[in-house]
Amino acid sequence: MWSGVFPAVTTKFTADDELDHAENERCFALQMEAGCDGIIVAGSLGEGPMLSHDEKIAVLKTAQSVAGGKPVLLTVNEAGTREAEQMARRAAKAGASGLMVVPSPIYHTNPEETVAALNAVAAAADLPVMVYSNRVAYRVDVTIPIMEELAKDTRFVAIKESSDDIRRSTEIISAFGDRFDLFTGVDNLAFEALSVGAVGWVAGLVTAFPRETVAIYQLMKQGRRDEALSIYRWFRPLLDLDVSTYLVQNIKLAEVHAINTNDRVRRPRLPLFGERRAAVEKIITDALASRPSLPRF
Amino acid sequence: MWSGVFPAVTTKFTADDELDHAENERCFALQMEAGCDGIIVAGSLGEGPMLSHDEKIAVLKTAQSVAGGKPVLLTVNEAGTREAEQMARRAAKAGASGLMVVPSPIYHTNPEETVAALNAVAAAADLPVMVYSNRVAYRVDVTIPIMEELAKDTRFVAIKESSDDIRRSTEIISAFGDRFDLFTGVDNLAFEALSVGAVGWVAGLVTAFPRETVAIYQLMKQGRRDEALSIYRWFRPLLDLDVSTYLVQNIKLAEVHAINTNDRVRRPRLPLFGERRAAVEKIITDALASRPSLPRF
Amino acid sequence: MWSGVFPAVTTKFTADDELDHAENERCFALQMEAGCDGIIVAGSLGEGPMLSHDEKIAVLKTAQSVAGGKPVLLTVNEAGTREAEQMARRAAKAGASGLMVVPSPIYHTNPEETVAALNAVAAAADLPVMVYSNRVAYRVDVTIPIMEELAKDTRFVAIKESSDDIRRSTEIISAFGDRFDLFTGVDNLAFEALSVGAVGWVAGLVTAFPRETVAIYQLMKQGRRDEALSIYRWFRPLLDLDVSTYLVQNIKLAEVHAINTNDRVRRPRLPLFGERRAAVEKIITDALASRPSLPRF
Amino acid sequence: MWSGVFPAVTTKFTADDELDHAENERCFALQMEAGCDGIIVAGSLGEGPMLSHDEKIAVLKTAQSVAGGKPVLLTVNEAGTREAEQMARRAAKAGASGLMVVPSPIYHTNPEETVAALNAVAAAADLPVMVYSNRVAYRVDVTIPIMEELAKDTRFVAIKESSDDIRRSTEIISAFGDRFDLFTGVDNLAFEALSVGAVGWVAGLVTAFPRETVAIYQLMKQGRRDEALSIYRWFRPLLDLDVSTYLVQNIKLAEVHAINTNDRVRRPRLPLFGERRAAVEKIITDALASRPSLPRF
Repeated sequence: MWSGVFPAVTTKFTADDELDHAENERCFALQMEAGCDGIIVAGSLGEGPMLSHDEKIAVLKTAQSVAGGKPVLLTVNEAGTREAEQMARRAAKAGASGLMVVPSPIYHTNPEETVAALNAVAAAADLPVMVYSNRVAYRVDVTIPIMEELAKDTRFVAIKESSDDIRRSTEIISAFGDRFDLFTGVDNLAFEALSVGAVGWVAGLVTAFPRETVAIYQLMKQGRRDEALSIYRWFRPLLDLDVSTYLVQNIKLAEVHAINTNDRVRRPRLPLFGERRAAVEKIITDALASRPSLPRF
Repeated sequence: MWSGVFPAVTTKFTADDELDHAENERCFALQMEAGCDGIIVAGSLGEGPMLSHDEKIAVLKTAQSVAGGKPVLLTVNEAGTREAEQMARRAAKAGASGLMVVPSPIYHTNPEETVAALNAVAAAADLPVMVYSNRVAYRVDVTIPIMEELAKDTRFVAIKESSDDIRRSTEIISAFGDRFDLFTGVDNLAFEALSVGAVGWVAGLVTAFPRETVAIYQLMKQGRRDEALSIYRWFRPLLDLDVSTYLVQNIKLAEVHAINTNDRVRRPRLPLFGERRAAVEKIITDALASRPSLPRF
Repeated sequence: MWSGVFPAVTTKFTADDELDHAENERCFALQMEAGCDGIIVAGSLGEGPMLSHDEKIAVLKTAQSVAGGKPVLLTVNEAGTREAEQMARRAAKAGASGLMVVPSPIYHTNPEETVAALNAVAAAADLPVMVYSNRVAYRVDVTIPIMEELAKDTRFVAIKESSDDIRRSTEIISAFGDRFDLFTGVDNLAFEALSVGAVGWVAGLVTAFPRETVAIYQLMKQGRRDEALSIYRWFRPLLDLDVSTYLVQNIKLAEVHAINTNDRVRRPRLPLFGERRAAVEKIITDALASRPSLPRF
Repeated sequence: MWSGVFPAVTTKFTADDELDHAENERCFALQMEAGCDGIIVAGSLGEGPMLSHDEKIAVLKTAQSVAGGKPVLLTVNEAGTREAEQMARRAAKAGASGLMVVPSPIYHTNPEETVAALNAVAAAADLPVMVYSNRVAYRVDVTIPIMEELAKDTRFVAIKESSDDIRRSTEIISAFGDRFDLFTGVDNLAFEALSVGAVGWVAGLVTAFPRETVAIYQLMKQGRRDEALSIYRWFRPLLDLDVSTYLVQNIKLAEVHAINTNDRVRRPRLPLFGERRAAVEKIITDALASRPSLPRF
């Protein structure tokens, strides 16, 4: 159902800490112009947990306005299932193409609770769901046996695989074939995941470097692996910024340099400062200085 | 400013998943009757992240109605600092004696962000604050250097020490003397913490076994350590239920047996079932069968 | 200098717990007949820490007798550097083609100590060295900065990359190009490592399934990735047996079924028993039942 | 059978990396003069894994010469059970009072293997055994169920509890009463362990500060807890040096300052250098500058 590069976009704020609709629109449009295949709003990278439900719907609408009919997904990531259902229903009503769903961001659900929470959200929205499996960030692992339960409901169409272990991708394919659209959710494991059969990439650095991200994906799809690998090796120090406690600040700083925007964040996050800011900035400027010209694809 | 046994109370729900005010009142009153020295609502154990702000204020009011003038604290544990400030202001307006504050439950703040988030909440409420340092649950550690920053603001009056490392208690005392009221927040390290100088215990199993918890504390205070240790050894299998992903369900099940209430929880939690329920139930019934008679103190 | 499939062979014992020279010879020969490119004796899988120096030299000689001129490496893995130097000198005298060297198996050396220990062994033997970087088993990580130090000595020719993080392979290539022969040391990351540029595979399950292992390597080398991936997917449940505390027992049990030998081990290891043995045996027999026919390559 | 302070002594080397018998004798004698209750040679702190069997026996004899009839234990910590048995038999023949036994320092034994390895060593020596349970250093945990097996053999007389979790001490006492002599093996958890009922302390910093260590133990035994706690708080920054990858170098550096010896170590260890050496040295000199006068006991 879904495949290709789906940016998990950042959210732009004004100096007054309000949503910056114009800047969101400009930045989201850059993604689509570069050839992305869908868009996901209000995820971890989009500072979803710091947005109100109203704000999430507003961001969704902005994304829809530039998506040109490509899928726009809203992230559901609520501490309580009750609130997750409410959010899911509002997303459906607002015309979301689907949901990306985190089972439980604070409490660490056991397998039965994980299944129940995901089922509740899917039922509330009656929309296609991409299950976000990220045991590193949330300490809830959507394992193969849990996926077996989810496979019974056709609303669960995709897995965003962020276990941080590349082996898991092969395990999912061996267990389910193409029952689920397998997306990698870890930027610096993306080449490896596509090598073993993933069909999509929920990407992070794409917000600053959309053309390079799309190039790797498309070249892989065309069997031009060496060209893709060459770009990937150049890209890796940047992609590593996605696998960090500070991914939001890192990637927003990359956007400052690459697409001329700001790096405002919502508290408790603060923009990078001091040595860490300098180190990240060096990675970004080094990469920009050696930016490869991309082949046609 | 604060010392003694402060229950982090559970929250009772009706069959319709609404707050059960009458049952909350009954259960909170049991704590005070047993000699507890304060009460903390809407914490992890109180399923705070699954309560709305309105509900938290309602629970606060119930606690105030039975506290007899002893301190009643409300827990602030919001993903966004903006929402944390809102909650803090409402608590102050509702007459909370103080706040227990989690720096950041989803994003893992760095030290500067941790300080900024705690400062923002303290300033918003202008109430005494107990800082909840729990790197195990939230992966944000309020370290000694962070406490040095907090010590500059007199609103930070207490530390709930839940690092899961008993060494930390001595480190805090060595660094700060009695600048902070040192509470242990880990039931099955409480005897050890009181042995090295903690003055308070934010307790969990107390909701089911208030008299035993208070007895340990008071006997320690009177230097009757052997008597306290004897009760503690009996209590340990129960206290271990507090140090678990399933602490809410565990402790509510203990309450079912010990104070004749129900173990309803809010989703994504489910009540314990199957082998885990049986195992926890055995711990509880074994402990009840060998319940010691308590000395006078 | 080195490339291809290098089995880290198991060591066979008689019923009296002595080296079974004949069985070692038979099993090592199977590897070479299947097309392996070298052989490594007395590694973790070869129960090196449970062999005396004399026994290690004896196993080396057996391997040399069947290697047909292909490289035979001996593993140096001693708690003390003094003993490591002694072992290295004996290996050189016995005509080893090179050494695989673990920096320190009990004490966790810091970077300077790691470099010093590796330098000492390389100097003692004056042989080409494959550095075994396995932070999971030994909690000593041979990092990129350490490799920069090692790169100054031409005796360090190869890295056995067993960090358990596939990202590391790309990092090594980005930092050093082809200065080091990059071998993967993790069976169930081998396809991924070869995909990003590794030139060799220090393999484990190869001792039971040499033809399949060689097929994957050779097909990858010829750009026949889909065929390699298909075999790899079949092979994965077996390859997973290499990434286990019980890898020696697991792989020896696979050998029982696949090459008709025994699974005797040296204490403190015991052969698998009970449920674990049954579970591993099921993996092995399931794989044998669905064993693919291999393409010509 | 055993109780009190047992130093796990360091081993002194000459400039030629040979055993320095005279210095060992001098240093061991300091321990006994300060009132220690036994002595353990060739442990982790004694660089046991870098000593030959002959050297271990030589160190044992030195300790026996100054022990004045108090127990002298030799540590058995061999990768292979066969070698462990050999060492155990030699220790018995040399008149060791008992053994401290590490189940398996390289391979991570499962429970059945752990029991078998310990049984084999105990049977080989027919000496009283102190079981060294240190899952942090060796990733083999001697759990309560394993202790239940060991309790069947009267040769297992003591537990050196180094799980790094103070809760374990109470669990052992609750399960076994005084069946085992419970020693803490973690310097900076010693006060806590003695508070909950441990009867002995296998100590590290004692080699540099024997009188302070003995004072804490004896004061605790006499119920003079506040005096003990006061010394312990002063001692803690030093005791923390025992809980480190670099404990050997740390403690030898403390000995340089406190008992005027050298800090030579065997490779792969190197003496501390640079910033780490400076930081440790500051801890030591700060402590010496504020060294308390000890009460009579």
